[in-house]
Amino acid sequence: MQRYFLTKVTKTDDELELPKDIAHHLTTVLRAEAGTKFEIVLADKQVYLAHVTRIEGLLTFAIIDQQLDVNVELPVKVVIAAGLPKGDKAELITQKATELGATKIAFFDSKRSVAKWAPAKQSRKIERLQKIASGAAEQSHRQVIPEVVYYNNINELLASETAEVKIVAWEESAKNGEQSQLVQSLNELKYGDTLLTIFGSEGGLATDEIALMQQHQVVPAGLGPRILRTETAPLYMLSAISYHFELEN
Amino acid sequence: MQRYFLTKVTKTDDELELPKDIAHHLTTVLRAEAGTKFEIVLADKQVYLAHVTRIEGLLTFAIIDQQLDVNVELPVKVVIAAGLPKGDKAELITQKATELGATKIAFFDSKRSVAKWAPAKQSRKIERLQKIASGAAEQSHRQVIPEVVYYNNINELLASETAEVKIVAWEESAKNGEQSQLVQSLNELKYGDTLLTIFGSEGGLATDEIALMQQHQVVPAGLGPRILRTETAPLYMLSAISYHFELEN
Repeated sequence: MQRYFLTKVTKTDDELELPKDIAHHLTTVLRAEAGTKFEIVLADKQVYLAHVTRIEGLLTFAIIDQQLDVNVELPVKVVIAAGLPKGDKAELITQKATELGATKIAFFDSKRSVAKWAPAKQSRKIERLQKIASGAAEQSHRQVIPEVVYYNNINELLASETAEVKIVAWEESAKNGEQSQLVQSLNELKYGDTLLTIFGSEGGLATDEIALMQQHQVVPAGLGPRILRTETAPLYMLSAISYHFELEN
Repeated sequence: MQRYFLTKVTKTDDELELPKDIAHHLTTVLRAEAGTKFEIVLADKQVYLAHVTRIEGLLTFAIIDQQLDVNVELPVKVVIAAGLPKGDKAELITQKATELGATKIAFFDSKRSVAKWAPAKQSRKIERLQKIASGAAEQSHRQVIPEVVYYNNINELLASETAEVKIVAWEESAKNGEQSQLVQSLNELKYGDTLLTIFGSEGGLATDEIALMQQHQVVPAGLGPRILRTETAPLYMLSAISYHFELEN
């Protein structure tokens, strides 16, 4: 069933006028009519069943029928923080990280990032990525749309993102045969905690960035013995987190 | 360090003439000269350190110095079998599944596949995907290049692919709250066993395809509560397998 986000609306028994983009999608893409059912996520992040009551020109109205007993969110909040990647990889990371359950997606300009976002373009880039996250959240039936943000450097990232546990995907860890840090970090997390996960761009992270992370209690963790591309590592991380918390426990 | 596959060559103390594509890459892309070191994987799937001995026009020669003590392969063989996906998703699955450790990647025409590969184009498609797998195997420093194959339908797939454990990623499992089958299936695998994992295309799998799989002892397994796109599910699967075997155990 189609799912939409109405994140500024609180539960009501009254008829709702749907926002224009949702009304347009329902009536022209899905050819909805009075009685067509769909799901909405309200400000409380809960899922509700609703149906179209009437369509009057460009205006579409609906009523909320009942709350659905579903929870598809990870038991911990995961922030994916990726050094600016090349090409369209920011789009791929945003779409896939949303599907895989991320709470927030941050891109930061790292010393070895080849890609740079000119200051004039940053807000438009983030706006575009936020739209991708919203679409992916609807498609994967999330209850939360991950927020997409930009930081000018790792200092800004570390100053802004607080978390109970912080890890950096660190290729050298894998080379040194370190295998247990990710498991250990996940075991430290309690329900509702936040996990900050940091990924370098194609060129990896610079020595002073690593040093700064250590000052902020960010722990290096390997993601297995194969070398993963910059856009693949966050997907591995989120899949492993889901397997650990949602399938094993 | 750059890694190449020489999968038809057995270990030798003699000077080797390198294949044209590798010679070209070494000399023109990497600007190698006599003495430049690189890694090669030979027919025994072991990694060796080698160095360029001389470059004579288009011919490049090298000598194998020593075997390196590395193993980056998963302890079980994983076959990813995906219903034909739309657009360029077969490329994405091939590249990412290679990075994440798959042994073999099969695409099969499923009843609900919107994408179809015309018979005349199948071998060219597979050839192209095989090249992507080879490139990704080099980049992620694999010791095995996954074989890419095509099956006309699920019957062919099930008749050809034998495996100790077979699972199908099944969205309905997730909706029913099933959470432990993947963990259970992974626990059944012994070192060197083969795991066949099957994924539907965008439209999912048809009822009679599911029935046929049951006859072949394919078990449905959920991949967590969120709905994953057809190209994301294989990446989740491989990441979970790596986490289970390489980080936890």
